[in-house]
Amino acid sequence: MLRAGLVGVTGYTGMEISRILASHPSMRLTAATSRQDAGKRLDAVYPFLQGLPGADVTLIEPDARALAEVCDVVFLAVPHGVAMEMGADLYDAGVKVVDLSADFRLRDAEVYEAWYKPHTRREYLSHAVYGLPEIYGGQIRQARLVANPGCYPTASILGLYPALRGGIVRTDDIIIDAKSGTTGAGRKAVVSSLYCEVADSFRPYNIGGRHRHTPEIEQELSVAAGSAVTVSFNPHLLPISRGILATIYTKLNSALSQADVQAMYEDFWKDCPWVRVMPADRLPETRNVRGTMFCDIAVTVDQRTGRLIITSAIDNLCRGASGQAVANANLMFALPVETGLNFAPLVP
Amino acid sequence: MLRAGLVGVTGYTGMEISRILASHPSMRLTAATSRQDAGKRLDAVYPFLQGLPGADVTLIEPDARALAEVCDVVFLAVPHGVAMEMGADLYDAGVKVVDLSADFRLRDAEVYEAWYKPHTRREYLSHAVYGLPEIYGGQIRQARLVANPGCYPTASILGLYPALRGGIVRTDDIIIDAKSGTTGAGRKAVVSSLYCEVADSFRPYNIGGRHRHTPEIEQELSVAAGSAVTVSFNPHLLPISRGILATIYTKLNSALSQADVQAMYEDFWKDCPWVRVMPADRLPETRNVRGTMFCDIAVTVDQRTGRLIITSAIDNLCRGASGQAVANANLMFALPVETGLNFAPLVP
Amino acid sequence: MLRAGLVGVTGYTGMEISRILASHPSMRLTAATSRQDAGKRLDAVYPFLQGLPGADVTLIEPDARALAEVCDVVFLAVPHGVAMEMGADLYDAGVKVVDLSADFRLRDAEVYEAWYKPHTRREYLSHAVYGLPEIYGGQIRQARLVANPGCYPTASILGLYPALRGGIVRTDDIIIDAKSGTTGAGRKAVVSSLYCEVADSFRPYNIGGRHRHTPEIEQELSVAAGSAVTVSFNPHLLPISRGILATIYTKLNSALSQADVQAMYEDFWKDCPWVRVMPADRLPETRNVRGTMFCDIAVTVDQRTGRLIITSAIDNLCRGASGQAVANANLMFALPVETGLNFAPLVP
Amino acid sequence: MLRAGLVGVTGYTGMEISRILASHPSMRLTAATSRQDAGKRLDAVYPFLQGLPGADVTLIEPDARALAEVCDVVFLAVPHGVAMEMGADLYDAGVKVVDLSADFRLRDAEVYEAWYKPHTRREYLSHAVYGLPEIYGGQIRQARLVANPGCYPTASILGLYPALRGGIVRTDDIIIDAKSGTTGAGRKAVVSSLYCEVADSFRPYNIGGRHRHTPEIEQELSVAAGSAVTVSFNPHLLPISRGILATIYTKLNSALSQADVQAMYEDFWKDCPWVRVMPADRLPETRNVRGTMFCDIAVTVDQRTGRLIITSAIDNLCRGASGQAVANANLMFALPVETGLNFAPLVP
Repeated sequence: MLRAGLVGVTGYTGMEISRILASHPSMRLTAATSRQDAGKRLDAVYPFLQGLPGADVTLIEPDARALAEVCDVVFLAVPHGVAMEMGADLYDAGVKVVDLSADFRLRDAEVYEAWYKPHTRREYLSHAVYGLPEIYGGQIRQARLVANPGCYPTASILGLYPALRGGIVRTDDIIIDAKSGTTGAGRKAVVSSLYCEVADSFRPYNIGGRHRHTPEIEQELSVAAGSAVTVSFNPHLLPISRGILATIYTKLNSALSQADVQAMYEDFWKDCPWVRVMPADRLPETRNVRGTMFCDIAVTVDQRTGRLIITSAIDNLCRGASGQAVANANLMFALPVETGLNFAPLVP
Repeated sequence: MLRAGLVGVTGYTGMEISRILASHPSMRLTAATSRQDAGKRLDAVYPFLQGLPGADVTLIEPDARALAEVCDVVFLAVPHGVAMEMGADLYDAGVKVVDLSADFRLRDAEVYEAWYKPHTRREYLSHAVYGLPEIYGGQIRQARLVANPGCYPTASILGLYPALRGGIVRTDDIIIDAKSGTTGAGRKAVVSSLYCEVADSFRPYNIGGRHRHTPEIEQELSVAAGSAVTVSFNPHLLPISRGILATIYTKLNSALSQADVQAMYEDFWKDCPWVRVMPADRLPETRNVRGTMFCDIAVTVDQRTGRLIITSAIDNLCRGASGQAVANANLMFALPVETGLNFAPLVP
Repeated sequence: MLRAGLVGVTGYTGMEISRILASHPSMRLTAATSRQDAGKRLDAVYPFLQGLPGADVTLIEPDARALAEVCDVVFLAVPHGVAMEMGADLYDAGVKVVDLSADFRLRDAEVYEAWYKPHTRREYLSHAVYGLPEIYGGQIRQARLVANPGCYPTASILGLYPALRGGIVRTDDIIIDAKSGTTGAGRKAVVSSLYCEVADSFRPYNIGGRHRHTPEIEQELSVAAGSAVTVSFNPHLLPISRGILATIYTKLNSALSQADVQAMYEDFWKDCPWVRVMPADRLPETRNVRGTMFCDIAVTVDQRTGRLIITSAIDNLCRGASGQAVANANLMFALPVETGLNFAPLVP
Repeated sequence: MLRAGLVGVTGYTGMEISRILASHPSMRLTAATSRQDAGKRLDAVYPFLQGLPGADVTLIEPDARALAEVCDVVFLAVPHGVAMEMGADLYDAGVKVVDLSADFRLRDAEVYEAWYKPHTRREYLSHAVYGLPEIYGGQIRQARLVANPGCYPTASILGLYPALRGGIVRTDDIIIDAKSGTTGAGRKAVVSSLYCEVADSFRPYNIGGRHRHTPEIEQELSVAAGSAVTVSFNPHLLPISRGILATIYTKLNSALSQADVQAMYEDFWKDCPWVRVMPADRLPETRNVRGTMFCDIAVTVDQRTGRLIITSAIDNLCRGASGQAVANANLMFALPVETGLNFAPLVP
């Protein structure tokens, strides 16, 4: 049984890690940290865990050395900026690390600093592997430090990868209109995330190229295309807890039929059971992936305007964060990637 | 006190008409029809109306002649196809008509038939005025038959009008990514509209140019631009009851600043109190227009990609249907357009 | 036009006061205070007010003297403990006061202190009138200080009043199982009120006689009964924004039929248009009172167990707090109680 | 691998059976029936199943003989009245049956007929075992026909069992105020279950002793008490998809402390890992059991009124229906009861 540590238990990604590990057959939560709740049992903070594996873990103050001694792998579920220090220290202490923050995702430190803040551990960037299992599975197996992808990038990259790799769409005319559930806003006590501020409403935020996931998406899509890709990324907040749906507008380079693109996508993803290409008459819904690792993708050719519209849905917490982190940990320890992660969607 | 009739009381637009007329100072519901509930009192169907004006109206079978005798104006809240017959008959009977269906919105019968079904009353199309008060107020005042705009078109047209009239964006590169609350799907008993099918989920539908509001939007935007406009219209279903938010992607014809476009929009709408142009640091939210006639619009210039992104929010039931219908009736009887309609948003 | 002040604008009751006054024909918000947002315009805090009356009020620091100079009436929408000082100071400064907190509701200072905290302005308790218009309308008209009832007490007292006044139920066997929307938990930034903690869930809290509304309910019901009444009050949190529904279990003193109790309730409330006694085949729903002053009440006799079950629904924010506060202010200035408050329910 | 059949796939309990079997290690869905969707693949009806075990089952018309040939066990997820015929026929055909309807739950056919309709297969009632694993586990292991408990009864009986078995509360003064998610209303296309009729609202229904789960609850509680038990059962509809919370009011026979009752409950359920007795400072929430077999129970002694208040929460679909059905099937085939059912709660 692998011993997993969790730094930052009180956010939604930490909560989701603890949910997933409660039923993982080969990995067990053995240490968890929280500055505000140190000294409490995990199930005092998360009563839903009462009686489940991990519930009796006592929360401690974060300490890289102490964690490294009792863990085989540590998940970092803390904000960017905090993660870079802890991640580097844990790496040095010899424990494997999956970082759920943005700190090691961008290969170019300049880009990181332009969008986030000064990077104090630049030298570790080259050790990090971008943790998208379908794309980087081989490298993840060898990695000691995995930069877990962002939620919006996961949905966007999986949706666009075949089209850009296949060169069928323009690289300078891509719009991603993305909608995320409210767990994406985190578990911090802020008025804008209160039930009565979010329920029965819908709103855009950070549109027009201001969201920090933009460079991450462009980085990976440029790899796919083999040349620079620019995207207009525009997020919105949904009154749901879990789920991202990205509606992606692209311009076809040549006249392709629905059947052409459908076949291309089905072929590209045929060995990746978590990526489900929808039949031509079906579109994704966030509920169909709730609580799972699935990414549901549909391709719609709009002959009238020469566009390919890609719709892509994931569970932002599971596939877009903590489940993907556990998948990466599975790979890092030579377990089958799907170990402990084959959840059926909770519908309704 | 004007006497209003309502054909088709059991849908959400009929429900909303009855809500609005319950507090209208100059118009009273005096007749209402429903095939399935004929013989019942209105408040037996809608208990929320108990004790309010209109609650004691007894529902009758639809009959144009009978309605014309007891009404000054009749609102048609029935499906397209049904409305064209009833609308023409009421017109002939001399009563003023506001039709909430699509039957008289498209000036070209060929276009109507390409998207809907055969039009059996083509000769009435030329009598109909498109009921967007800010644009066609003068003609509505003279009209006997008003074609009330669709919900998506209302949000889309108000959002795009200044940009197209001003010629600042391309007419062949417009994407409307629209999200609607579930009242937009109607009050029919279908599985896909059940609470447990819609709640805590989000999904696209009819994307890629298949939604019937496409030609209506293009018709009005072509008037604004003075040349043919093509839009890619893509709707989604939100787990909220009321509200539409359209995120509209356009290409600027020349390099304009945020301040340029902001000033242009504020100037264009300065005499229209229901259209609220957001300050530059604010974006619309559907809840801010809940239960009202407001259309909240923000303009966001994305210098990086040369795009103008317009976000536009309305209450699909009030501004996007029944409230707009009452505003049109106000104009048809020379009342101030806002009579009985100055609701403050119900937030939260 | 009466000039109204609002102390504590950033909570939900303050928000609701500002919504209601935005369409009040005889009262206008002229001053509003907020420690955290002083210096901002009201519509910078509440964008939904943009363009409406009151939107341009600039928030100031709370100061009784300054408020008294520019206001005819001041609404206190601050926490208990804070309200008692401000309320007394405003009273001394000669302005009329409606206090939405609990500070002046309990006539017995000992009871207040047993459930809340030390009362530093006991001498003002005798000046205060309990602001339930249907019961204390006459006294409210003469009052300079009104203690606005709690939300749960409003629904509970209106539901039980006729039965206790009529002596048809036992005074020592009353259970109130109450369910409230989340605005009842306030607008403070706490994790337990976050969207993702409340949505798609339901939970009891403070059950078994621990909720502070218990003594307030017992105080008023004892007046109704003419003898001491004990209730078991048990609240629950609903994943809705607005609405309280109380299901009240009583024991009948004698065998009464459904028709007997129905007639008694209809008669008792016949002159109170805001209290709607449901016909015998109908039960209240929170949505039917959304955004309004209505209290919908149904009586159900359960012959099998000898119980009378009363169900009572209000909008906790409007009828249960801010709307009732405005009704009280109307009475204090000899306006018709319903002035500016005859909202039709926003359904759906 | 056991072969399971499912009669009535299109309701929520059928949907939940198919979800659970998609990850069951020892049982596979091999046949499923639907009158309306016969001929379709299961994942055409339930796209969330795409790629999962069972997704490729082709729906057939219901036929007892055909099902018996290809199944080891058949789950009946059809309405009462329909189930009794199909259940008896399958029983005669030699296949094991778990009936999720009410048809075999009431041991006394007279009682069944008083609350439901004529029972045409009375002679099979004596073959049926009431499928509450914690109470009837031994008999279920021997059974060929299991009557799966109702959702409200499951929460109510598990909550009250220790108190009645222990004789600490009166048997004639029990009130169950129950609140259920909307899956409990079924997946039929009716207006009252539409999203916009349920969302952001709350309502009671069938209160005062009219709900059909009353006799089922009384039957089992009378067994627990050893004498006739009467309950006042009062259901309400919650705007959530899954979850029941019952707040149960009882009168203590003697003065017991919180600690006494707490200890009694913890002891009673100590060998039943799915029943989680909350620590004294914690109350159940429906989300904490979402998607699981847990029943979370808290006991609260109200000294002031001499009452014991029991709060009990389950997932109405999983524990209250389909998960319990699979647990019963596990027992009927000598599998560990928890096989394929150890889900961690999906929070948030």
